[in-house]
Amino acid sequence: MNEPLLVLVCGVSGQEEERIGAAAPDAEIVFAARVADVADRLPEAHVVAGNLDADGLAAAARLRWVHSWAAGVDGALYPEMVASPVVLTSSKGNGAVPLAEHALMLMLMLDRDAPRWLRGQASRSWDRFRHGELAGATCSIVGMGGAGAALARRAAAFDMRVLGLRRRPDEPAPCVERMYGPGDVEAFVAEADFVVVTAALTAQSRGLLGRAAFRAMKPTAHYVCVSRGGIADDDALLTALREGWIAGAGLDAHTVEPLPPDSPFWSLPNVIVTPHNGATTAQTGRRGVDVFVANLARFVAGEPLRNVVDKRAGY
Amino acid sequence: MNEPLLVLVCGVSGQEEERIGAAAPDAEIVFAARVADVADRLPEAHVVAGNLDADGLAAAARLRWVHSWAAGVDGALYPEMVASPVVLTSSKGNGAVPLAEHALMLMLMLDRDAPRWLRGQASRSWDRFRHGELAGATCSIVGMGGAGAALARRAAAFDMRVLGLRRRPDEPAPCVERMYGPGDVEAFVAEADFVVVTAALTAQSRGLLGRAAFRAMKPTAHYVCVSRGGIADDDALLTALREGWIAGAGLDAHTVEPLPPDSPFWSLPNVIVTPHNGATTAQTGRRGVDVFVANLARFVAGEPLRNVVDKRAGY
Repeated sequence: MNEPLLVLVCGVSGQEEERIGAAAPDAEIVFAARVADVADRLPEAHVVAGNLDADGLAAAARLRWVHSWAAGVDGALYPEMVASPVVLTSSKGNGAVPLAEHALMLMLMLDRDAPRWLRGQASRSWDRFRHGELAGATCSIVGMGGAGAALARRAAAFDMRVLGLRRRPDEPAPCVERMYGPGDVEAFVAEADFVVVTAALTAQSRGLLGRAAFRAMKPTAHYVCVSRGGIADDDALLTALREGWIAGAGLDAHTVEPLPPDSPFWSLPNVIVTPHNGATTAQTGRRGVDVFVANLARFVAGEPLRNVVDKRAGY
Repeated sequence: MNEPLLVLVCGVSGQEEERIGAAAPDAEIVFAARVADVADRLPEAHVVAGNLDADGLAAAARLRWVHSWAAGVDGALYPEMVASPVVLTSSKGNGAVPLAEHALMLMLMLDRDAPRWLRGQASRSWDRFRHGELAGATCSIVGMGGAGAALARRAAAFDMRVLGLRRRPDEPAPCVERMYGPGDVEAFVAEADFVVVTAALTAQSRGLLGRAAFRAMKPTAHYVCVSRGGIADDDALLTALREGWIAGAGLDAHTVEPLPPDSPFWSLPNVIVTPHNGATTAQTGRRGVDVFVANLARFVAGEPLRNVVDKRAGY
C-alpha cells in the first residue's frame, strides 16, 4: 500500500512500546492510555489495540483490525462490531494460568473455610476444626478454553476427578475423565463437589446454570466462577446459597461489575467475593502483548492472524 | 504365647473399632478416649495405640509396641521412650495430602494477598490490585517425606520450579529439580520464592532456619510451615517479618501450641496464622487407622512392622 500503516495502541505499559514497534518497523505507531486520547487519529487508523466503542468504530473509516487486551470479548461484541467487516482478535489465553490458580485458591479456601481461620487470627483464638480434602473430590469445569485446561491439569495433580463441559463434548481434553455438552448440565453438576466456571459469556452460555442446575448440585458442593458472571443466573445462585441447596461459592466474576455495594453476595456467610481480580498479574499483561506483537508481524506480512474472534459464536 | 494379647486403643472414632478388632480377632482390645481412662490396664498391656507418657510407659511392664496417631513423633520421643526397647510406630504419611493442600492454599493466599480481598468484602469495596502467579516461581521444600513429596508433585503441576532439602541429598525425588543437604540451607532458600517446611522436628532440623537463612532469602519471598514449629528459629523469623527481610509467612505449625494469645505472630500484617489445622480431616484419621490395622495384623503374625520410628533420628 502507498499510505503508511497507522496503528493506535491504547492501554499498554510503556515498557512494551519497544517490542511492539519492532514488530512493524515501517508503521506509524501511536501509544495512548485510552482510545479517547487519540480520537483525532481514528479516521486514518488501520489497526486499533484497545477498547474501541461503537462511536470509535464508526469514526474509523479505514479500520481493518481491532485487538482486545481481554480474553473474553463479550464487552467488545456490540451489534455494530458484530456487523462490521473489521477483524477482531482477543488476548485469549493471557489469563489462563492465573485464573486456574485463583480457582484453586478459592476451592481450597472454601473447602477449608479459610475465612474462619482469618477471623480466629483477628481475635487471637486457636480455633481448630475439621475440614475437607480436595483429593478424591470431583471438579466439574464449565468451559475448556485456556483457563479450563490449566485448571484441569492442576486439579488432576490434586488427585481430583475432573469432568468437563464444552460446546462440542466430542472433543476430549487432557486430564478430563468425561466431557459433557450443554444439554447435560444437570447430570454434570450433580457429580460435582466443585463446579468451576471458566467459560466465555456467549449467547449459549448465558444463564446456563439456572435453578434446575443448582437444584441438581449436592448440598455439600461449592460453586466457583472465575470467568464471567451471567453464566449462572444470579437469582438462582442466591437462592441456592441462602436455602442450602449448595454449601457455598467463590465469586471473582460478577454479572454487574463493579459488584454494587447493595449486592447481597457481599455479605452471605458462605460466599467469598473477589473483585474480578484473578488474572491481574504482570504476566497476564505481557502475554496479551505477546499475542498482539505476533499478530502485528503477521498483519504486516499479510499472513493470517491468530486468536480471531468468531463474532457469532462470541469467542 | 499363653496369655492373650491385650491391646489398648485410645482416641479413635467408634466407627473404626470393628476393623481394628478384625485385625486381631484373638486379642482382647480395649477402646478408650485417652490412655488415662485405661490406666488400670497398662501393667498387662502388650500394645498401646495413643499418647503414652513417661509415667504410662513406666507402668506398662509387658509393653512391646506403641503406635502414635501422629505423623511427627517429636512429642512421643521423651528420654524414657528413646531409652526403652519398646517399638514405636508412627502414622507417618496420614496427613501428607492435606498438608500439601494446606501449604498450597497458604502459598496462593500469600501470593495474592487474599486477606486484603476478605477485608474488601467485609466493607463491600471493589478493591482490585496486582498480584503474583505461582507459575514460574521457585518452591524450596524442606523435608522430603510424604507431605514434601505430595507438595512437590502439586507445585510442579502449577509450573513451579521445585527444589528440595533432605538429610540425604543424594536421594532424588520426583518433580524435584535439585536436592540440597542441611549444610546448604542458605543457598537453597536464596533461590526460593516460597520456602515450605514439611519436615519432622528432630535434633538435626531444630533451628535449621536461623538468622543467616532468613537473611539469605529474597525480600519478595514467603515462608510457609505446615509440619513443626522450632525448625525455624522464632526470633529470627519474627525479625525477618518485621524488618522486611522476607515478604510474609503462612504458619500452621508453631513452636508453642496453642499459639499463646500474646504471641506477636497473631497480629503481624504479613502473616497468616492457622491453628495446626492443615491435616484435620476425616481421611487423615482413617489413614492413621489404616497404618495401625495393617501393623496389628503383622504383629499378630510375627511379621516386621512398618513405619517403625528410628528413635535416634527422630522419625
